[in-house]
Amino acid sequence: MRKVAIIGVGHSKFGNRNDVNVAELTFEAVKPSLEDAGITAKDVEFMALGSAGAGAWCEELIPAVVAAEYCGLKKPGLVRCEAACASGSAAFFTAYSAIASGQAEIAMALGVEKMKEVDTPTAMEWIGRAGYYLWEFHNFGLTFPAYYALYANAHMAKFGTTEEDLALVAVKNHKYGAMNPVAHFQKQITVDDVLSSTVIASPLKLFDCCPITDGSASVILASEEKVKELGIDTPVWVAGIGYSSGTANMSKRPDYVGLDASVKAAQMAYKKAKVTPDQIEFATVHDCFTIAEIMAYEDIGFCKKGEGAKLIREGQTEIGGKIPVNMDGGLKAKGHPIGTTGCSMIYEVTKQLREEAIEKSRQVPLKNYIGLAHNVGGTGHYCYVTILRR
Amino acid sequence: MRKVAIIGVGHSKFGNRNDVNVAELTFEAVKPSLEDAGITAKDVEFMALGSAGAGAWCEELIPAVVAAEYCGLKKPGLVRCEAACASGSAAFFTAYSAIASGQAEIAMALGVEKMKEVDTPTAMEWIGRAGYYLWEFHNFGLTFPAYYALYANAHMAKFGTTEEDLALVAVKNHKYGAMNPVAHFQKQITVDDVLSSTVIASPLKLFDCCPITDGSASVILASEEKVKELGIDTPVWVAGIGYSSGTANMSKRPDYVGLDASVKAAQMAYKKAKVTPDQIEFATVHDCFTIAEIMAYEDIGFCKKGEGAKLIREGQTEIGGKIPVNMDGGLKAKGHPIGTTGCSMIYEVTKQLREEAIEKSRQVPLKNYIGLAHNVGGTGHYCYVTILRR
Repeated sequence: MRKVAIIGVGHSKFGNRNDVNVAELTFEAVKPSLEDAGITAKDVEFMALGSAGAGAWCEELIPAVVAAEYCGLKKPGLVRCEAACASGSAAFFTAYSAIASGQAEIAMALGVEKMKEVDTPTAMEWIGRAGYYLWEFHNFGLTFPAYYALYANAHMAKFGTTEEDLALVAVKNHKYGAMNPVAHFQKQITVDDVLSSTVIASPLKLFDCCPITDGSASVILASEEKVKELGIDTPVWVAGIGYSSGTANMSKRPDYVGLDASVKAAQMAYKKAKVTPDQIEFATVHDCFTIAEIMAYEDIGFCKKGEGAKLIREGQTEIGGKIPVNMDGGLKAKGHPIGTTGCSMIYEVTKQLREEAIEKSRQVPLKNYIGLAHNVGGTGHYCYVTILRR
Repeated sequence: MRKVAIIGVGHSKFGNRNDVNVAELTFEAVKPSLEDAGITAKDVEFMALGSAGAGAWCEELIPAVVAAEYCGLKKPGLVRCEAACASGSAAFFTAYSAIASGQAEIAMALGVEKMKEVDTPTAMEWIGRAGYYLWEFHNFGLTFPAYYALYANAHMAKFGTTEEDLALVAVKNHKYGAMNPVAHFQKQITVDDVLSSTVIASPLKLFDCCPITDGSASVILASEEKVKELGIDTPVWVAGIGYSSGTANMSKRPDYVGLDASVKAAQMAYKKAKVTPDQIEFATVHDCFTIAEIMAYEDIGFCKKGEGAKLIREGQTEIGGKIPVNMDGGLKAKGHPIGTTGCSMIYEVTKQLREEAIEKSRQVPLKNYIGLAHNVGGTGHYCYVTILRR
């Protein structure tokens, strides 16, 4: 397998972006990523676009070609990748594979989602379809907070995780989000703020849920030969990607205290990267709801099953702790434009590995220079885990 | 780059398939493909699903996980690939790359589309969005027959191509479609039938247009090591894949007599496969409209620009001619379930190379054992050209 590195990254402002159309939004990420890599748009041979909502919450049905042209790419190979909320990571996998297989020298993984073009109930309906439409959504009408509330209740019942523990995840991620100028929410909150916010699906309250967000992120990859040719100073190498999936039927899950797809994808990623969980120095994990971050700690192997709440209680996932998580604010505060999230995570891990976190206050101290991105689609329907190292 | 072979293929009946849901439809292709490969569903490590209309003409928004589970796959890596009408080829490229890069040993490219869940005007609206929604579809309202009518008129004006020449393409493809038991249309037609059919967008008439079709096709790929381990008798090797794209704006096309994306993708495929156009013994090309097949002859290099009509007039693209094209009936008679078409083309090329065409009457005589699949998305917005050899 050829070695592949990330040579450039870019990120748009996340939030309500009805000030731009989908192509304009991608440009805000693509332009800085090209400048970062020191290449021009015409150098990109292949582009994989992570985007889930084309035709649903965004009117543009085939956004890849529209985005590519608007950003000045010169007729690259194109594909849009969809793996629900893991679409960005699936795009990264595809762009990576194009180079690792020797079919391209420079490729782009670009995530974009515009979810604010429709009203919130409509957006929620579309997100709710990221289960098994025919059986579960159509018959039972569960929306996403309700799905994750099932997990929260099960985890609380089995392991004694509390509503305060969940709130601590939100507080931590808002704390770091407040330091991230591209985050949707840049305001610190308290445990009391979370606990007193509106109940959405008990025990999840408004501040346990990530927002509906527009945004874009771009990652440029290159072969080892190209990295040398371009004289890239700080290539960040793709050490390994793990992937897995789960049943599409919530009713068939063996339990509701973790995501089997996360466990399997993480194990594959560790094996491919030839590292162990304790060598990982920081991570971005999929905290679409606060309970999801606690389950991720356990599923990825940062602690034993059932001990996730202990990690957040002890502050082990803050800077200075055992394993800092979501120093960009996570989905919770940075926002979760569905198809963008995987690329946004890889943006953050890359910036941290280069010791270029936008605000030094959220820079993780590094020794091994190994970071991990964990991206879930649906409620464990898809999972990609990507390990990067400098 | 690791060598990768096709080890199994399967195909559903094409047509109006409102008798099954999307998962059931994939099963009709997946099951025979697994049997053909001599493997079981659990052996598939990665699956790329070509499907364009999720959430549009089909209610299931994330079909990959639903299809994978229904077909008994055991938690593979999953991604849905969308490149408009080239989605199936994009999925094939992605599954191929996963193996060629050393990240999987066995992968599946699965195409599925259910377009008949909505009425024809709605389906046409969605297909029409496969341009640039914001600028062209929304403002001018062109649907697909109108886009291709622009090409037909330009080709006729510049090269003297006639309505009879276009009709000959339909007659040929219906002739072979009539021999293909999975084709949507299995009835021979005459030039008069075409010329006297309802005008859709002049000069294109009803019988110049491919139908709206449901269907599924599955292709299983494996690494060279796995091919040996499994003792596959007739592996069909992926010789090379070319990809390109075009402007999303019809108004920016340099001319309307060919597709630049087809030219570039074909050139890349020839280069990668180290073959020349005259070594190709047969092809499946993207005949969404009759004019598209004539332009494809030229763009792929089976004849010079402007001589496509001569090829069909002389019968050179029939069995016994210089370069037989669309021996499965093509999109025109077999049908065009958008995300499936790329995989269906590769199914056909594989069966021909194995000399297993379902009806011997449509088996191409082979010497070099090299075939080509040409799959366009939009009106040249995307193009993938795949060369296979035995």
